[in-house]
Amino acid sequence: MLGTILHGPRDVRCEEVPEPKILQPTDAIIRLSASCICGSDLWPFRGLDDVKSPMAMGHEYCGTVVEVGRAVKTVRPGQFAVGSFCISDNTCPHCRVGFQSSCAQREFMTGAQAPLARVPLADGTLVATAEPPSDDLIPSLLATSDVLGTGWYAADAARVKPGSTVAVVGDGAVGLMGVLSAKQMGATRIIAMSRHKTRQNLALEFGATDIIAERGDKGVARIKELTKGIGADAVLECVGARESMMQAIHCARPGAMIGYVGVPHGVELDGQALFFSQVGMLGGPAPVRRFLPHLLDLVLSRKIAPGKVFDLTVPLADVAEGYRAMDERRAIKTLLRV
Amino acid sequence: MLGTILHGPRDVRCEEVPEPKILQPTDAIIRLSASCICGSDLWPFRGLDDVKSPMAMGHEYCGTVVEVGRAVKTVRPGQFAVGSFCISDNTCPHCRVGFQSSCAQREFMTGAQAPLARVPLADGTLVATAEPPSDDLIPSLLATSDVLGTGWYAADAARVKPGSTVAVVGDGAVGLMGVLSAKQMGATRIIAMSRHKTRQNLALEFGATDIIAERGDKGVARIKELTKGIGADAVLECVGARESMMQAIHCARPGAMIGYVGVPHGVELDGQALFFSQVGMLGGPAPVRRFLPHLLDLVLSRKIAPGKVFDLTVPLADVAEGYRAMDERRAIKTLLRV
Repeated sequence: MLGTILHGPRDVRCEEVPEPKILQPTDAIIRLSASCICGSDLWPFRGLDDVKSPMAMGHEYCGTVVEVGRAVKTVRPGQFAVGSFCISDNTCPHCRVGFQSSCAQREFMTGAQAPLARVPLADGTLVATAEPPSDDLIPSLLATSDVLGTGWYAADAARVKPGSTVAVVGDGAVGLMGVLSAKQMGATRIIAMSRHKTRQNLALEFGATDIIAERGDKGVARIKELTKGIGADAVLECVGARESMMQAIHCARPGAMIGYVGVPHGVELDGQALFFSQVGMLGGPAPVRRFLPHLLDLVLSRKIAPGKVFDLTVPLADVAEGYRAMDERRAIKTLLRV
Repeated sequence: MLGTILHGPRDVRCEEVPEPKILQPTDAIIRLSASCICGSDLWPFRGLDDVKSPMAMGHEYCGTVVEVGRAVKTVRPGQFAVGSFCISDNTCPHCRVGFQSSCAQREFMTGAQAPLARVPLADGTLVATAEPPSDDLIPSLLATSDVLGTGWYAADAARVKPGSTVAVVGDGAVGLMGVLSAKQMGATRIIAMSRHKTRQNLALEFGATDIIAERGDKGVARIKELTKGIGADAVLECVGARESMMQAIHCARPGAMIGYVGVPHGVELDGQALFFSQVGMLGGPAPVRRFLPHLLDLVLSRKIAPGKVFDLTVPLADVAEGYRAMDERRAIKTLLRV
């Protein structure tokens, strides 16, 4: 079959790869309904994460189960299922308290920018739907696998509550999903930081009440202005860069939590400055599995449409163009027809 | 009157100082029932915080109101009152959500190692008791002003819940109060890290279920052993040094919060390591005012006896010996008869 392999910085190719096989009795093989490219795929694509050997790309997926190992009990061939980008057993002590992304058996999904994928620990990772969904829901279902689950976790970690004033730093796909999540959690004011018209429009569609185009100190000053000098009740940091993290800290009110979900690159925090800012932080890879059942309900009942975040669709053969479009910010997020 | 002045590293003196006066209509003057020395006083005493000019020391206090400014409405001369080491108006937006230690008008109390002290913003800072307390309760009431309020905040920020397994890093007075606080909040397992017999005994008396004498990696390994490899549900960091902070992070389970209340000195946090540990953090100067009414109730009804943390009492004239005893860890916390 065809699959996506990153060979080195900016060298991503759609090429012939072996079909995945059941390797463990707890595995499942799924035929993807669609796949996509993640903002985090851009780190190695840009050469900012080391790529020592060719990497099978892709960790967001949904589709039809085609085969399961003999130990798999909760999903069966023919079912439609979605899984998290973090593989988890969903039974270990970390999973049981809702931190499946720190599962004792955690693996990160790979190889899902392809028509077929192996999902390890299928019972703990996949959530099957009662019946096969309509085709038009596929983009939104795919989004729950990572980008929506991650935005949701940012809002959950930031303890967004009904009535909260929320600031979202980062207008990438995750930031936009953070806006949607905050809205679902009842935030009444959602300030999205974005300087790109298409992203601003999508943020507004997902529930943002205010848009701030300024960054850095000026962006912080604007948030303070909008919040009568108080700062935001909850902040979602959806980038992972030093500047965005400092912006998140400085626009949070004392006692606020920052949910940070962009993998930090070059971020060092000064303990004493953080102490006196009295801002809390909780981040990490999102425990999407905790949220999946609820997110699937929201999508299947058409209460949310996170799939709108995909503004470019290309066939798998053109995956390299999909990466370039996101890298150059011509696309927010690329859906792959597989 | 006599008061305590720090002139430079290790040069603390009890000397003649002017009596405090009402300077603002919102001030109160109180006659202290007792005063004490705080662990944080040791930072400038040891020369680790700069002392550019003579500093009036002391920020923990309780006693009888002797005079109030004309704008003060909630306390009156003759009442017994306790206040936080953080001066707050208790009406600003930060105060209203319980973060009085980040009050828009915040000041830090000074000059309370003396028989009389000026308390600014008396209405927002002081809490008066219904009637004058018995003398034997004075040490415990004094403790609520900072050391207990700070340990309580550490447990609150770490989200200690009924049934939690809690690790307390630091066996200073604040750490011991953290043990007491975790016990009050229903923690069923409280692991105190201490290598000093008297502190271990006090930790056990306050509710610790386990004592770990090892530090660093060995201490972390012991906590992992005691928690079946899971880590603690909540961690109280009550030191502020680099080693203790790393210990706190490494012994917390994913999703756990660290309440950190030791002012960080030389602590730099790597964003990516913190991200993948998936441990949350909330710290800062404790908003003691939020907890004071509840803590006073607990003391006045004799449900808790935090005053046991004072294991040395000296007259104000011997304040320098009080500092030395704490600096050399001969005393956990020194009460001053004023």
